[in-house]
Amino acid sequence: MNGADLLCETLLANGVDVCFANPGTSEMHFVAALDRNPRIRCVLGLFEGVVTGAADGYARMADKPAATLLHLGPGLANGLANLHNARRAFSPVVNIVGEHPAEHLPYDAPLTSDIESLARPMSNWVQRTASADEVGRDTAAAIGAAMAWPHQIATLILPADAAWDETASAAVEVPLAAPRAPDPAQITLAARALRSGRSTTILLSGHALRGPALELASRIARHSAARLMAQQSNARMERGAGRVPIDRVPYNVDQALATFAQTEQVILVGAKAPVAFFLFPDKPSSMLPADCEVIEMAGRDVDLGAALQALADELGIGRDVFPELAARADAALPTGRLTPDAIAQALTALMPEHAIVVDESVSSGRNFFKPTYGARPHDFLQLTGGAIGIGIPLATGAAVACPQRKVVTLQADGSGMYTVQALWTQARERLDVVTIVFANSRYAILHNELKNVGAGEPGRNARRMLDLDDPALDWVHLAKGMGVEAARADSAEAFVDLLKRAFASRGPFLIEAVI
Amino acid sequence: MNGADLLCETLLANGVDVCFANPGTSEMHFVAALDRNPRIRCVLGLFEGVVTGAADGYARMADKPAATLLHLGPGLANGLANLHNARRAFSPVVNIVGEHPAEHLPYDAPLTSDIESLARPMSNWVQRTASADEVGRDTAAAIGAAMAWPHQIATLILPADAAWDETASAAVEVPLAAPRAPDPAQITLAARALRSGRSTTILLSGHALRGPALELASRIARHSAARLMAQQSNARMERGAGRVPIDRVPYNVDQALATFAQTEQVILVGAKAPVAFFLFPDKPSSMLPADCEVIEMAGRDVDLGAALQALADELGIGRDVFPELAARADAALPTGRLTPDAIAQALTALMPEHAIVVDESVSSGRNFFKPTYGARPHDFLQLTGGAIGIGIPLATGAAVACPQRKVVTLQADGSGMYTVQALWTQARERLDVVTIVFANSRYAILHNELKNVGAGEPGRNARRMLDLDDPALDWVHLAKGMGVEAARADSAEAFVDLLKRAFASRGPFLIEAVI
Repeated sequence: MNGADLLCETLLANGVDVCFANPGTSEMHFVAALDRNPRIRCVLGLFEGVVTGAADGYARMADKPAATLLHLGPGLANGLANLHNARRAFSPVVNIVGEHPAEHLPYDAPLTSDIESLARPMSNWVQRTASADEVGRDTAAAIGAAMAWPHQIATLILPADAAWDETASAAVEVPLAAPRAPDPAQITLAARALRSGRSTTILLSGHALRGPALELASRIARHSAARLMAQQSNARMERGAGRVPIDRVPYNVDQALATFAQTEQVILVGAKAPVAFFLFPDKPSSMLPADCEVIEMAGRDVDLGAALQALADELGIGRDVFPELAARADAALPTGRLTPDAIAQALTALMPEHAIVVDESVSSGRNFFKPTYGARPHDFLQLTGGAIGIGIPLATGAAVACPQRKVVTLQADGSGMYTVQALWTQARERLDVVTIVFANSRYAILHNELKNVGAGEPGRNARRMLDLDDPALDWVHLAKGMGVEAARADSAEAFVDLLKRAFASRGPFLIEAVI
Repeated sequence: MNGADLLCETLLANGVDVCFANPGTSEMHFVAALDRNPRIRCVLGLFEGVVTGAADGYARMADKPAATLLHLGPGLANGLANLHNARRAFSPVVNIVGEHPAEHLPYDAPLTSDIESLARPMSNWVQRTASADEVGRDTAAAIGAAMAWPHQIATLILPADAAWDETASAAVEVPLAAPRAPDPAQITLAARALRSGRSTTILLSGHALRGPALELASRIARHSAARLMAQQSNARMERGAGRVPIDRVPYNVDQALATFAQTEQVILVGAKAPVAFFLFPDKPSSMLPADCEVIEMAGRDVDLGAALQALADELGIGRDVFPELAARADAALPTGRLTPDAIAQALTALMPEHAIVVDESVSSGRNFFKPTYGARPHDFLQLTGGAIGIGIPLATGAAVACPQRKVVTLQADGSGMYTVQALWTQARERLDVVTIVFANSRYAILHNELKNVGAGEPGRNARRMLDLDDPALDWVHLAKGMGVEAARADSAEAFVDLLKRAFASRGPFLIEAVI
């Protein structure tokens, strides 16, 4: 057995059985080992941003890491933007980055680079394995780091000789880490705040946005007349009819400030205190009033369900306090002009149960959230780190994790182009994904921002940087070029017809929604 | 005037008048300033790898830097792989990376990351500007660093408040650096070596592969009965009929070792001693025999033309020693099956004078080099850092730099998918580029490497990672999706017809060459 075989054995021994990959020559012994280990499912991405974004989507839905296989420093670099997002989603990911053997590094061959410096900003754990004998221990450490609460990005640098050298070492199993128990003092603080009668917002993220934890939070909020909100951006929310309808902190600074203008205290449950996505002249970084008290009841490394249960117990909340649950919305179908609202309405009516909705609609989908409270129950995955180009890869990984569920991607056109190659992986793996492209032929969000800057009407240079209309992208051609069936809709009726068709069949389908 | 205006003024004062861009909200004041400065040409890339690859292509042909405009750490990260290539091409590039104001960083907003750590591995110079008043000085320093010999990657981090704050500072001009004068002692060493009668290779790269310097090198080699060779990979070579036909060090390790097996001394002129691209078990890192003497006559920061002139003078080479020049090849057109050789033959016959050939053909183009010695004179740009995904962007930048010249991209399909978005920029800017995609539906180079690993016939997992045939990419659809006219050729005759059509008209055109 060589080091690469030991790597595969260690991944499998710890339940890591999917590898999103874009290999190169330096990883060829690992490829050969994967070929000898058919229990690991290898999924090729035609660009590393696809690979890491898919690993994120997989982790969010499987609650365990996939491995990625990346080709030296530049391959890792190509995957960094989506690792940035994954890190801020607290997704467990185990990156395996190929590298030259140590003895080859002084020769400065063309692909040589400082992999550690590249890896660290987007990794919580980085290690370079020294030899084949160390591969089992180091791989287990990487998986352990990835699964340490609240889950992390672990990057293992694998010199080619550590892969090809023989070893007598055995695979190492790493015990599964548990989240931290809630701190009783913080629970007491939160309970006292909720009894104070002051205007309070309970701000949730992470696992507090799922299942029984979310229902508990709703009961606590009702009992205490507090407001329940979710962080602006969250890795995964369970929502739809029969679930707690919870609003998110607005992206827009003025709206966020208004949301909290009357708030006297904020209780954080796996969430961060809300801050501006970008700082603007004469506007604050924090979205909270200066005198607003912030109670960090439970961080992301804490068992949030247990924390909420402890809080409910301390507040003495009885069985007679029920959570607020969304009713199923009426299923009227939109007609007329195709707008983002019409798309939301169509999805509310037609989306099947337990769909996974991946949202990278950016400006077009800002109003999507509320109309879909009454859609059939679904998971909702967001862009967590602001690095655009995650939608199509994230959906790809989610579909690999959950082959029985329909995945729906709400995709802005500008950000969709970043990692458009992921459509090919959807076709190759026959993934059950419907991609809805909001085709407005512009970076609409930046047009708004340019206005905010007070630049007046955009001139030639601004338009050359913010508009995508010359030439217009043809998403139907793009999808077909990668083996994905696709069609264009420019009316609500046409969109509804295509959506029905997409939901009635399996496999990838793309709808270019001309809005 | 605000800091962003000062940035534009300083770029223009130093002759930087092209900006390859993919901006975001944090760069919006810079976008507004560019809008007020129409003398700067802004070229949008739909992904940052397009932006940096285009900046590299522009620099190679313009011999001066373009600016890039990148959106915080993730935007920079997306551009790093092609900056890696640019750095190894010694291309001058000035990156402007947007960033949060310092006061906003402690809030850890979603897009916050350690930009310096990301920038350093692929930058020779990194600086964060402190305020609007410093922008002129820092931008000038960045341009100075980019143009310092042998040219470098300079990355200026621009906090949003340094862009939006008012300033009374003025644009700063930076004096143009000259290359270092050759070291007479090294010239004498080289002359002595050439007179020794030992088997000698003169290895060239950089500016020694252009114009009079290359002809001088050829005369020196002929006079001294030395062998002239170029580095394996070079930023830019002048070649074709009427120019010195110079071979490159082979990529394949066994072939490279054989090439130098009898070599007793190597004289480096702007080149590095040849090393293996990847290390393989039981093969060496250096391609030179252990007892081969290496004379570093002139590094990349030296005036290589002056160094070669000094060497010729010291050797007393007279006017009667002529350079070896390639004859125009006969212009027979290929027929029958479409192969890489047939493509080379067609280009030799049909390629117009002073075309710019961008080569990212990887394995398919390995034999392209020799048959095209007799093509009409052209420039030849290569992948210098091994990070695939540069071909289409590099051609885009070269075409922006040289609007009067036809650009021909030799593009492997696997690497072409990395930055396929660059086709859109070619359409938008009406660039005169013919992209020839070598469609073999596989990472062919990796199939070879897997064989070398001794893995035998690839199994399911290996094929899932190395083959691109399920589904096959349809490059005609992909190109049309981005507004580029395209057609498919599956015979030599069909290819010739399409090539004639592409050369007879202006504007981007893509040929999917099914080989």
